[in-house]
Amino acid sequence: MSSNLIVQKFGGTSVGTLEKIQNVARRVKKSRDAGKDVLVVVSAMAGETDKLLAMARELSERPERREIDLLLSSGERISSALLSIALQSLGCPAVALTGRQMGLVTDNIHTRARIKSINADRALDILKRNHVVVCAGFQGINENGDVTTLGRGGSDTSAVALAVALKADRCEIYTDVRGVYTADPRIVPNARKLNMVSFEEMLEMASLGAKVLQIRCVEFANNFNMPLVVRSTFDEEDEGTLVCQENPDMEQPVVSGVMSDKDQSKITIKGVPDQPGIAAKIFNALAEASISVDMIIQNVSAEGHTDISFTLPTTNLQEAMPIMQDKGKEVHAESVSSDSDISKISVVGAGMRSHAGVAARIFSALSNAGINMMMISTSEIRVSCIIDKKGTEQAVRALHDEFKLDQEPQRVSETPTGA
Amino acid sequence: MSSNLIVQKFGGTSVGTLEKIQNVARRVKKSRDAGKDVLVVVSAMAGETDKLLAMARELSERPERREIDLLLSSGERISSALLSIALQSLGCPAVALTGRQMGLVTDNIHTRARIKSINADRALDILKRNHVVVCAGFQGINENGDVTTLGRGGSDTSAVALAVALKADRCEIYTDVRGVYTADPRIVPNARKLNMVSFEEMLEMASLGAKVLQIRCVEFANNFNMPLVVRSTFDEEDEGTLVCQENPDMEQPVVSGVMSDKDQSKITIKGVPDQPGIAAKIFNALAEASISVDMIIQNVSAEGHTDISFTLPTTNLQEAMPIMQDKGKEVHAESVSSDSDISKISVVGAGMRSHAGVAARIFSALSNAGINMMMISTSEIRVSCIIDKKGTEQAVRALHDEFKLDQEPQRVSETPTGA
Repeated sequence: MSSNLIVQKFGGTSVGTLEKIQNVARRVKKSRDAGKDVLVVVSAMAGETDKLLAMARELSERPERREIDLLLSSGERISSALLSIALQSLGCPAVALTGRQMGLVTDNIHTRARIKSINADRALDILKRNHVVVCAGFQGINENGDVTTLGRGGSDTSAVALAVALKADRCEIYTDVRGVYTADPRIVPNARKLNMVSFEEMLEMASLGAKVLQIRCVEFANNFNMPLVVRSTFDEEDEGTLVCQENPDMEQPVVSGVMSDKDQSKITIKGVPDQPGIAAKIFNALAEASISVDMIIQNVSAEGHTDISFTLPTTNLQEAMPIMQDKGKEVHAESVSSDSDISKISVVGAGMRSHAGVAARIFSALSNAGINMMMISTSEIRVSCIIDKKGTEQAVRALHDEFKLDQEPQRVSETPTGA
Repeated sequence: MSSNLIVQKFGGTSVGTLEKIQNVARRVKKSRDAGKDVLVVVSAMAGETDKLLAMARELSERPERREIDLLLSSGERISSALLSIALQSLGCPAVALTGRQMGLVTDNIHTRARIKSINADRALDILKRNHVVVCAGFQGINENGDVTTLGRGGSDTSAVALAVALKADRCEIYTDVRGVYTADPRIVPNARKLNMVSFEEMLEMASLGAKVLQIRCVEFANNFNMPLVVRSTFDEEDEGTLVCQENPDMEQPVVSGVMSDKDQSKITIKGVPDQPGIAAKIFNALAEASISVDMIIQNVSAEGHTDISFTLPTTNLQEAMPIMQDKGKEVHAESVSSDSDISKISVVGAGMRSHAGVAARIFSALSNAGINMMMISTSEIRVSCIIDKKGTEQAVRALHDEFKLDQEPQRVSETPTGA
């Protein structure tokens, strides 16, 4: 069933100046003039959140998370009030709502709270009166009535959650790019904007460093089957990328995109006794420190010893190394070393499910380009390789060419299905 | 009965930078270390409110007051969170509370709301756990759950209201001056800081342009007999000025202070028919436009016609003149003119009640200084004169000298009582 409501979310760069806020107001008004009910979610003006956070950190090495949430939530309150004022001045009635006023209740985990429920009565009431609702993104309240925030990309999550709660037609995420691309256009000049991508592909892309959408927001949209549209705030013509459930009629190329991530590091523990429980000991220590490990390789055992390598975000390397050095001693390992000169290249495509040989094509394309793979990991719709950092751009271009991603894909129904 | 709680309010200049916030944190911690329960109320960082307001005005000529309140309240939320973080980093446990969290409920009049009730349960609970409470000043919520603000000087009002609700011992207003002075030290270099002043005198002084305290805050304190202390954020030694109920033991000079106000203008309507109801017509028109008139003079009637002069704040002059020109025509007045080259000089003192001849001393002192008085008005504890603006400083100094305000006053019981 289709409702008449759309949710539009505008990020920090879209509301970064008063002129940009006026531009957003004009776009929102256009949607309303076209007969839509509109609920808008805004981020803080670009730079505002970082500025507030920097102040807190200047005052304290470890500011309490409860006060950080109170502090940061001000950024979205300001931008929502300003956008509401801009709409009103265009003759478009609007009401700004805070996290509390939009009924967004979260758990107690300050600075990365999870949404528990939304009571959208007030927003619905405002929409019924034919006003635009402008919601401060990123924020909610917990059951004590304290302000909480949803973590990085929280405004996207707010937007999707509100769209779900209000049974919106779709949730539009406005940003400074035209949509989701086959590759980073700064690396691949002929990268193509995708018209459509499945939730699953988008989830892989988001977790691989495609910054256009946060994983949580896509997960949420996927769980509740809320179609997302990623589109440009500044280019009104372009209809952006639709992110939705896979369906048979969808254009479904074998590969949808190539991603690279240079913010990865590798830790290698050499000469670990090849005994049960040792790997668990090592990785439990990292889990306790809330450090996520990505790929893991364990060599074939030689003389009762083995080497373990794993990758992790470079931002966690400094914290992880002393933990690993301790564990290394504990298990009598030969050495613990790290390497930040690596990057992760990934190829994502829902079509991989029905097409054999994709991994093989990837490996030959990289090999033909003279690029050595250090580690490989795969999922049903993704292949990732760790390579030397200096080969990153070349690898991305080679794979983009290999799968002809600059060209409009053929329909899956027209392509042969591999065994 | 004396409680163990003090309320400390810090204005925008006191929390204008991170360094100043750290300084405030140290002072608050000192009070707590001395065994006091402390509830702090903060204004927005200096300049923040004006910056937010300027943004709203750039977006709209008449921004809606509801959104303005949402916008402006962010300033105090930010400073309260920052001060709380600064306290925590000094090892002083603290919790920041928003207007809603401190239970401050107001009426519906956005941008100048009146406090209706305070439910201080949460603040009390935090104080019981031996934490400092840091309240965002200036803000409350109305019964719809919308943010309201209390108007200029609203943080002072928040502080006094919270002090009353929590039965605090006293309410300390920290500012960038050492207290209440006998005259503006920029005009009278030997002006003396008063150790004590009565609520009534303070009310007169505040309404006469002594900017150190807002009228509403003093009214509130007077109504609930909450002693105020005005003192410097930066000078820890000085104990400031105590503002409290008059009592017989109080040092009670004839005159406590001399104030001047250059932001006054005079409107004169000449040749008005001397008939009943004409003055009412004129002043009703101003009241409808919410313009406060201060002094009014009506000349003795000559040939059935009279002249009416009145003063008003210069900021209202531009709005008032067209209204007066209309009314002038309506009542067939000869002319309507205005004069902004005036100022109001006032002498305030609770001792005037029991001392005759104060007005006469004022008039001779001004006359001896060669200063002409255009209008005079008096209350029980005040005499005000309108003079030519260029004589302002000279008049203030002459009156300060006349009443020897640079010297510590004698007790009232030691001075003779006039007939």
